[in-house]
Amino acid sequence: MAIATKTPKVGEGETPAPATKGARTRAAILDRAVDLATVEGLEGLTIGRLATDLGMSKSGLFAHFGSKQELQLATVAAAGERFRSEVIEPALEATDGGPRLRAMAEHYFDYLETFPGGCFWGATASEYDDRPGPVRDAIAASMNLWIAELERQAKVAGVADPDRYAFELYAVVMGANSRFRLSGDRKVFGLARAALARLEVELPS
Amino acid sequence: MAIATKTPKVGEGETPAPATKGARTRAAILDRAVDLATVEGLEGLTIGRLATDLGMSKSGLFAHFGSKQELQLATVAAAGERFRSEVIEPALEATDGGPRLRAMAEHYFDYLETFPGGCFWGATASEYDDRPGPVRDAIAASMNLWIAELERQAKVAGVADPDRYAFELYAVVMGANSRFRLSGDRKVFGLARAALARLEVELPS
Repeated sequence: MAIATKTPKVGEGETPAPATKGARTRAAILDRAVDLATVEGLEGLTIGRLATDLGMSKSGLFAHFGSKQELQLATVAAAGERFRSEVIEPALEATDGGPRLRAMAEHYFDYLETFPGGCFWGATASEYDDRPGPVRDAIAASMNLWIAELERQAKVAGVADPDRYAFELYAVVMGANSRFRLSGDRKVFGLARAALARLEVELPS
Repeated sequence: MAIATKTPKVGEGETPAPATKGARTRAAILDRAVDLATVEGLEGLTIGRLATDLGMSKSGLFAHFGSKQELQLATVAAAGERFRSEVIEPALEATDGGPRLRAMAEHYFDYLETFPGGCFWGATASEYDDRPGPVRDAIAASMNLWIAELERQAKVAGVADPDRYAFELYAVVMGANSRFRLSGDRKVFGLARAALARLEVELPS
């Protein structure tokens, strides 16, 4: 997950259209892999399973990803890219600090709708927290980057304990995702927004 | 998860010692099943896998649980029992309302230490949120009971919007569990306690 840390120029930070047919195919495969992982888990994401889902041959997929682990790592990277383009980049329009924090939280709620199974990180973090290895490390690194960005913005906003603030904002939005996934009740997003409003009141004006 | 909703008499609500050898064996099996599910997931909890882990015969386990689903449902019930005895019951010593909420959160942090893989509900909720059926329903029902109890106590404490308060407390303690599982950094419990202290300030005195 590449986190943009400054105000972008127009077009900067946008994903360039993949140049070749192979790259476009790879991007489409990974988009589907990210979605599948939110429903069935990342451990169940084998080359065979994905080939069946996409109606591709296993050998065709092997040409893009040499192993299950390579596919999983590419999927985590693609999920980071989706997070960047759906949560981080649209929020760059808001001023650093409090407005940026609010924008990231709102874009996070929109971004949840892009998955069939809720937040990729919510689905895979608990799946991998007891599976040491490169996939777990990649998931942890992406989540750390996001929390670091929340913390940086809380600091800009003048919060005395930006690490606590960042954790709390993270916990509220991820908690809304997990409650919604299990209860199916959208009411939780209203509760989460009320919790975020309470966090905002805390910001020095 | 049976949630006690009144001040108990001495001994009330305590788990009675299982009366028969069969019942004791079943309780020991389920205790291990709960632990295993936090590390490997509940879907991986087959009778064969558990038999290997316990050094028991598959037929011996079949005598206790006739199917994988029966085993999974019994495991969810046993996890509810552990939650009740580790989080709900010890907190009954605290006065209803604010002190009870604080006590439940603190006991939740202690209860996390009883698992090899962190909170059972954190591990299984995201695993099952896209698997409709009785196991998902049982997990959702247990979590709903807990949140309802948090909400009830927030109401007793005089909070104007107890549902938002309950959600926020839930999000903070579950968020601490998931951050700790992935980062291994105990610092997050300090952040969560600071967040809880901030929630407490909000309580009418």
